[in-house]
Amino acid sequence: MIPIVCIVGASDSGKTTLLERLIPELTRRGYRIGTVKHDVHGFQMDQEGKDTWRHSRAGAQTIAIASPRGVASIRKTSDELPLEEVVARYFWEEDLVLAEGFKRSRFPKIEVFRSEVEPSPLCGPGDNRIALVGDETQGLEIPRFSFDQIRELADFIEERYLKDRKSHPVLVQIDGKRLPMNAFVQDFFVGCILGMLSRLRGWRKPRSLLIHIRLGEDP
Amino acid sequence: MIPIVCIVGASDSGKTTLLERLIPELTRRGYRIGTVKHDVHGFQMDQEGKDTWRHSRAGAQTIAIASPRGVASIRKTSDELPLEEVVARYFWEEDLVLAEGFKRSRFPKIEVFRSEVEPSPLCGPGDNRIALVGDETQGLEIPRFSFDQIRELADFIEERYLKDRKSHPVLVQIDGKRLPMNAFVQDFFVGCILGMLSRLRGWRKPRSLLIHIRLGEDP
Repeated sequence: MIPIVCIVGASDSGKTTLLERLIPELTRRGYRIGTVKHDVHGFQMDQEGKDTWRHSRAGAQTIAIASPRGVASIRKTSDELPLEEVVARYFWEEDLVLAEGFKRSRFPKIEVFRSEVEPSPLCGPGDNRIALVGDETQGLEIPRFSFDQIRELADFIEERYLKDRKSHPVLVQIDGKRLPMNAFVQDFFVGCILGMLSRLRGWRKPRSLLIHIRLGEDP
Repeated sequence: MIPIVCIVGASDSGKTTLLERLIPELTRRGYRIGTVKHDVHGFQMDQEGKDTWRHSRAGAQTIAIASPRGVASIRKTSDELPLEEVVARYFWEEDLVLAEGFKRSRFPKIEVFRSEVEPSPLCGPGDNRIALVGDETQGLEIPRFSFDQIRELADFIEERYLKDRKSHPVLVQIDGKRLPMNAFVQDFFVGCILGMLSRLRGWRKPRSLLIHIRLGEDP
């Protein structure tokens, strides 16, 4: 699974500004970065009257637009998908996903804190906060970076999440829910699959492998 | 793999209008429909100044927005992804994907034809055209439906693509490229995977199973 780090903080604390500085620094180092934005209010990505908007209004559940420069998609859901499912579904070539928001997720967090915006940091014990960016605060037991220490922050992220990309290489989802596997089982399972597939014509050593099995109502 | 049917036709022939009628009819019958729009000019889905637009400008390769009502994503690519890769990546719960455009793909096509827009139909031999919607044309060897025969067209699509959803249930992609497998190998491979996984704690009979393996530079 691709590592996920959340950038959290009060409204207007500078989360997007931090991302605007951090993404180019990590990209410059050769990493492919993805981002996820948490939008509690629901978003408006499509434009009224466009063909895709007409597809959606007619009842299409998922809509994609393919062009020479990229692919966009919109999927309707009845509930909010958990961050890890969003990442598992929509990111596959990235080395790291930086999520803006998602304070309540279990993923590691970097808090952006400016004392002129809020009196004290948002995160408490148990929030899995790994670093703070911004103003000094009392009793901090994690690294603190200023808004100008982008290189130092990138070093910190690289060391923690980008050096050892090969651990836990497999994600198995049953109807969208992750099947837990320990490291030994992962290794064994990946070995079996690669062993089987490597005997087929068309095989080549993969960097990433996606297997999608549909069994329908009565497996 | 989810079946794909392309709706092709000259500009202004009524492709989107046909989809606006066909999608509700198929949805009413209990099928989940996805659509793909081919946009040769490149699209503008994001809005300047928004946080996601700022992420993209900073260099993020893929951006997703998660909200309680849905998920949207934008991915930058250096080339146009083939239709089957778009469908494999972005659609998993759908029963059928209707693609608008993609005349040059290998997928079955329904041509929309109005003689007031173009003198003769676009598709020729070898284009895998399975039906025509619109005006009469000479020498047609495939079924023709009028714009009002939506129920008949839905019957035709249902009979051909939605009755036997369980054949060819597996898609394996190596670095985004499909690994071909015949029906026997698919069956054997799916059996092995289900057999292995069913021994693990947390297993339950799936409707769909997604396996994502990342091996990095040196597998």
